Amino acid sequence: MTTTADLRATVESYWTAAGHRDWDTFAATLADEVLYDLPQTRERIRGKERYLAFNREYPGDWQVRVERIVADREGLQAAARTLFTVDAQELHAIHFFTFDAQGRISQITDFWPEPYEPPAGREHLVERY
Amino acid sequence: MTTTADLRATVESYWTAAGHRDWDTFAATLADEVLYDLPQTRERIRGKERYLAFNREYPGDWQVRVERIVADREGLQAAARTLFTVDAQELHAIHFFTFDAQGRISQITDFWPEPYEPPAGREHLVERY
Repeated sequence: MTTTADLRATVESYWTAAGHRDWDTFAATLADEVLYDLPQTRERIRGKERYLAFNREYPGDWQVRVERIVADREGLQAAARTLFTVDAQELHAIHFFTFDAQGRISQITDFWPEPYEPPAGREHLVERY
Repeated sequence: MTTTADLRATVESYWTAAGHRDWDTFAATLADEVLYDLPQTRERIRGKERYLAFNREYPGDWQVRVERIVADREGLQAAARTLFTVDAQELHAIHFFTFDAQGRISQITDFWPEPYEPPAGREHLVERY
């Protein structure tokens, strides 16, 4: 029986391990047949070995901080917001996870939204921060 | 007592009402003190009246389809993926919701990730779709 706390702990372990480049602990969170999707580039990676290689080979000196985890036990899924620091630049990222019956991550979908200038016409409703 | 199904139903009602421009039903999902954040533009809107105006005044002939809802009863929060169609263009969007004790939406954070070309060097691991 997978609990909400289990899902949350798996997502936390995934990110802590990635931040430490601890690929054994990272791999332990993943199902063998994990599917990774990047809808913005329409890229897909199939299977744990390729996905580990993608992460091990990922260039740059990045660090990651988890901002929020939304864990849905009934749906065996979760969503997370993270903040990446890459060469003194901060980047938001969003991640959707699906879990298998054993609580391992079977699907990951990542999004990398970039900053942009707001369109004109709504200044009377918004404040900037 | 708010259930996972309640949170999911509120998110579905929020999007169905927005799609129909049914602002009374949309307003019923929101707490009076709702806070709306767009981290990409660093814009914030405070309160139901301003947020309703923002949505009523939003330009363009858009339609929205909900792709996924992640509902976290214990955390009184949810995340959603949607696909917007604006003038025959499809746009991904991601939304994080926080709920108050009555199950109304008290915080919304939206992200609008844009398509981009994948960097070189990972072609041996990925397929395109």
